[in-house]
Amino acid sequence: MKFIDKLLAAGRRNNSLLCIGLDPDPERLPVEDVYEFNRTIIESTCDLVCAYKPNLAFYEAMGLRGMRALKRTVACIPRQIPVIGDAKRGDIGNTAAAYARALFGYYKFDAVTVNPYLGYDSIVPFIEYRNRGVFILCRTSNRSATDFQDLVDNFGMKFYMSVALRAGEWNKNRNIGLVVGATYPEELKEIRQMCPDMPILIPGIGAQGGDLDLSVKYGVDSHSEKAIIVAARQVIYASAGADYGKAARAAALELRDRINSILNMRRR
Amino acid sequence: MKFIDKLLAAGRRNNSLLCIGLDPDPERLPVEDVYEFNRTIIESTCDLVCAYKPNLAFYEAMGLRGMRALKRTVACIPRQIPVIGDAKRGDIGNTAAAYARALFGYYKFDAVTVNPYLGYDSIVPFIEYRNRGVFILCRTSNRSATDFQDLVDNFGMKFYMSVALRAGEWNKNRNIGLVVGATYPEELKEIRQMCPDMPILIPGIGAQGGDLDLSVKYGVDSHSEKAIIVAARQVIYASAGADYGKAARAAALELRDRINSILNMRRR
Repeated sequence: MKFIDKLLAAGRRNNSLLCIGLDPDPERLPVEDVYEFNRTIIESTCDLVCAYKPNLAFYEAMGLRGMRALKRTVACIPRQIPVIGDAKRGDIGNTAAAYARALFGYYKFDAVTVNPYLGYDSIVPFIEYRNRGVFILCRTSNRSATDFQDLVDNFGMKFYMSVALRAGEWNKNRNIGLVVGATYPEELKEIRQMCPDMPILIPGIGAQGGDLDLSVKYGVDSHSEKAIIVAARQVIYASAGADYGKAARAAALELRDRINSILNMRRR
Repeated sequence: MKFIDKLLAAGRRNNSLLCIGLDPDPERLPVEDVYEFNRTIIESTCDLVCAYKPNLAFYEAMGLRGMRALKRTVACIPRQIPVIGDAKRGDIGNTAAAYARALFGYYKFDAVTVNPYLGYDSIVPFIEYRNRGVFILCRTSNRSATDFQDLVDNFGMKFYMSVALRAGEWNKNRNIGLVVGATYPEELKEIRQMCPDMPILIPGIGAQGGDLDLSVKYGVDSHSEKAIIVAARQVIYASAGADYGKAARAAALELRDRINSILNMRRR
């Protein structure tokens, strides 16, 4: 099954564009064990999401223990829900192939995020996994995204738009998506217009201050799908107490429903 | 001790600009155990190099077993020789901080490589480790490097030169270096002119076909230092038999001496 079909099926089943970021920070966890924490979050929310997205940095920071928890976490997510490995990798050909083996072969992610700086041959080893998804960083959610991504080339096109354009050209296997931060709604609108059919992964609502309304409005395709709205901290740390699973469920439910009501208002 | 001082001291002690890339590929290893392989390479070459550079992709591709071997490998490298973690990470602030904890805190690399696409705030968590080095990808060694890195901005400057320029501005802690592929000697020359004092990590000789002569000539600073010439496959796989340590030593010795004779010709 292709990644996009799995994503759409999960989103339709759960009536949701919400993706929960599984980014455990040892200083904020209400329990000792990272895997136990993730499993509780997953069990509490897996009927409310279209995907989960662990960011590898948080697991790597915990060393081997973290990597073991990551592998167990991916394995415990219900099979019908896609898991996006937020790795932002980018390296030359044979090395990129090793990263693809790690992420798709060993950890078994359904999709990953990659960095475009090294160009096409650094992306190929990922998109060759035809049934997996590959989200290319286009417009990131951070303030310094403007440093390089806003550079204007001699055709008058900003760098992030060149990335979106090339991603479309490279999409022979129909498994490429883009990452666009919720903190840049105008850019999101522009990118969605250039790539009407690609899934867009949209981090940056919540703690980072991105605009949920505009993210949903500008991010979805013409069928009100293919936008993956990521929330991490505001869901997984909704409570610092023993009720963190319940609190995460309430936060996820509220977010899912807010997203759906934005979609309903848009449809009218 | 600052990274740059450790690098220069190791280079002077061993009279070497050679850095060996520790990129183990399970299909090419003459022994079963990755750590044992690396340890043999290190014991056979540690008086001939200025640094070692493991690329994390190859360890990640082996799963937990690989990460364990990586940690043991870093720990077994003699203390006076710097170890560069080739990770090419790039993520937003709090996530980049988690990667920095992983690479500097857990694995204990002396320096790492990072990707510039996300801009300044994605680099800060790394350069805040004042005694560690941070090599920013500038011009990568692969063919598709031209896809985005050659985009010309409206001031007529190519993107990779903007990266070199900004890296210089960001270098308050004097711990930033650049990555420039040996496969692009003209670009290396241009970048060295813009950044006369920065260490430059130069992969791409050997299997990738980069030019050793020009890499040395254009890469070094005015004191014939601060160029880190990386060789991986041609050294670590110099023999597929039980004599791989001895063969690696011979290959490393020859490369070190070739680099030094290029420097000597240049001095005359």
